[in-house]
Amino acid sequence: MNIYDESLKFHEEKRGKIEVVSRVEVNSVQSMSLAYTPGVAQPCLEIQKDPDKAYIYTRKWNTVAIISDGTAVLGLGDIGPLASLPVMEGKAVLFKTFGDVDAIPILVDTKDTEEIVNTILSIAPTFGGINLEDISAPRCFEIEKKLKEKLSIPVFHDDQHGTAIVVLAALLNAMKIVKKPIHTLKVIINGSGAAGNSIAKLLMSSGISNVIMCDRKGALYRGMEARDAEKQAMAEVTNPYNAKGTLPEVIVGADVFIGVSAGGVLTKEMVQTMGKDAVVFAMANPTPEIFPEEARAGGARIIGTGRSDYPNQINNVLAFPGIFRGALDVRASEINEEMKVAAAYAIANSISEADLTDEYIMPRAFDKNVQMQVAEAVRKAAAASGAAKV
Amino acid sequence: MNIYDESLKFHEEKRGKIEVVSRVEVNSVQSMSLAYTPGVAQPCLEIQKDPDKAYIYTRKWNTVAIISDGTAVLGLGDIGPLASLPVMEGKAVLFKTFGDVDAIPILVDTKDTEEIVNTILSIAPTFGGINLEDISAPRCFEIEKKLKEKLSIPVFHDDQHGTAIVVLAALLNAMKIVKKPIHTLKVIINGSGAAGNSIAKLLMSSGISNVIMCDRKGALYRGMEARDAEKQAMAEVTNPYNAKGTLPEVIVGADVFIGVSAGGVLTKEMVQTMGKDAVVFAMANPTPEIFPEEARAGGARIIGTGRSDYPNQINNVLAFPGIFRGALDVRASEINEEMKVAAAYAIANSISEADLTDEYIMPRAFDKNVQMQVAEAVRKAAAASGAAKV
Repeated sequence: MNIYDESLKFHEEKRGKIEVVSRVEVNSVQSMSLAYTPGVAQPCLEIQKDPDKAYIYTRKWNTVAIISDGTAVLGLGDIGPLASLPVMEGKAVLFKTFGDVDAIPILVDTKDTEEIVNTILSIAPTFGGINLEDISAPRCFEIEKKLKEKLSIPVFHDDQHGTAIVVLAALLNAMKIVKKPIHTLKVIINGSGAAGNSIAKLLMSSGISNVIMCDRKGALYRGMEARDAEKQAMAEVTNPYNAKGTLPEVIVGADVFIGVSAGGVLTKEMVQTMGKDAVVFAMANPTPEIFPEEARAGGARIIGTGRSDYPNQINNVLAFPGIFRGALDVRASEINEEMKVAAAYAIANSISEADLTDEYIMPRAFDKNVQMQVAEAVRKAAAASGAAKV
Repeated sequence: MNIYDESLKFHEEKRGKIEVVSRVEVNSVQSMSLAYTPGVAQPCLEIQKDPDKAYIYTRKWNTVAIISDGTAVLGLGDIGPLASLPVMEGKAVLFKTFGDVDAIPILVDTKDTEEIVNTILSIAPTFGGINLEDISAPRCFEIEKKLKEKLSIPVFHDDQHGTAIVVLAALLNAMKIVKKPIHTLKVIINGSGAAGNSIAKLLMSSGISNVIMCDRKGALYRGMEARDAEKQAMAEVTNPYNAKGTLPEVIVGADVFIGVSAGGVLTKEMVQTMGKDAVVFAMANPTPEIFPEEARAGGARIIGTGRSDYPNQINNVLAFPGIFRGALDVRASEINEEMKVAAAYAIANSISEADLTDEYIMPRAFDKNVQMQVAEAVRKAAAASGAAKV
């Protein structure tokens, strides 16, 4: 049986991958009086007086909404909210398993940006954090921006920032191997959607200035024919030498290729034109921009993908559970750039430098110790950057 | 330590009365591939083709949203959404404990009827049912009505219908003791808010025609000075002899008094004017319309309250977990009058007639067998009334 049929059978047997359970026993008048009426009136009144008390008397402190409209689901695209529920439940499983976070899928039955924002604002009091998931660009940018303006709990679009964090982690370790200082790198990011933008911003936050973003037409540069507003904005802040041209043209001499685009767009011939000790992260799923065998044949030294069946899997699951764990623990008001960079360094440094090899730059996805190191780094960065409330 | 201080300590120790857990283990590439990417794509695609498959491949079938704006919380009134969270978590505990339903509190941060409706419609795909909770009248009527029109999953306002169901159950058993046929009864319902209206409708659905509703000004009757739209509507369908007057005036000769109003509004003297074998259900919480000792002194034979420290507690928890259990099991499109009446009979009949006494007309709130009988009755009534989809 292939993995798809097996998964279908598995889902049918489970009838749901998550479940809400009670943390208290109610089996007597006494226990009912404590957990429910009349005793419950007291924590209610305390929260009414001081809303912060909700973090003490309820589960808000550990509860995150996983919100999706189902428009950009994994490799499936716009399948609608209901059809995305198996993915969102899976994400909730990962949140719990690796971060001990109570995550609740919330599907929104609209594609209208304003409606999605208003719905989330309306239900926000329930939650300690908001994880946006699989919402298509450019709507995801506006939704996240508006929510961050209006909410004082973490709002995190994992497809953007989770991806950016694990890519930075992989890049940091790759550079330890090839011994290039990161500020000297020429990095090509192919794909200017949700993930591409966030990767570019995070690399720049980390001191890498020569970042060139490409879309299907080629490099984003100042003075280019108008594309969408996000692309124009990215052209302003990336590509310091204002390189122009298609991917095969601008990739010449690059140290790093990061693909968050579509399967097969990178050829062996293009890799051959890259600099010495080239690094290729081909993240498109399930078909990467270039298969590792081809990239190797083109001369790439360190190769990563999103897939678990090749070495160097660059997987979001290394980031988001620990990041939310850390953010929730200090009641962070946001997940800022400092916290993201700290998370990337924690992931990278979870492997000692002596153990790094061309085929081992990322820790295993199932290592809970990594998550705990990420959480600790995020707590510290939140405190240092002023985002921590406790 | 009193119950309120004890409850505060209890809530602080628990830091949340519910929790989201994973039903699957993810500790290997293989298990990740089944529960998440890439295998999860298959159930997604199946649901995209046939939305009903969400009931098979996800937890939707067993998941209910407990939605509140915090405007009419227990005895506390309008304390706002966040402060109501301890109550909503408590409700989720009862849903799980007695009905094995996964219930998720969702607080809505608005009092605007239209906004609440739109928010709920927007997030509805996630859920197998909607339980409205502690939303003040008359907004609760409009919200429920609009949701029922637009959604094909059960929408249930427990403060209305849950209360009505347990009151009808108590009434059925009381009448077995005093041996009055229910269609002959004169029933006074004091309180014309959410619960009062629903009780009146359910009693009428059960064959009791002489139901007189009172608000602070007295009986609702045809031709009365305009009050609110809901009250006008209830005046049209209740009070067949169009009795006029204040509570002390219309209660004369009544067989049953049902209070869903405010503490202390019924006096011993009023009870003295009721008919033989008078029944008094004084449901206001925590202070009933009349304390049982006083009602007894006034000549009432069977007395019920909402409190656990008196006999005959008339408690919603006997109804809503089993009702949702039954409705979810048959994927009911709604919870209709037939299902509610069936639930009331199931609660009443869970005590054998031989065991009934003046002080034992309702089963214990902690008897899971009662819930299972309610669920079974609801499944059957759903099938018989055409609401069951499977």
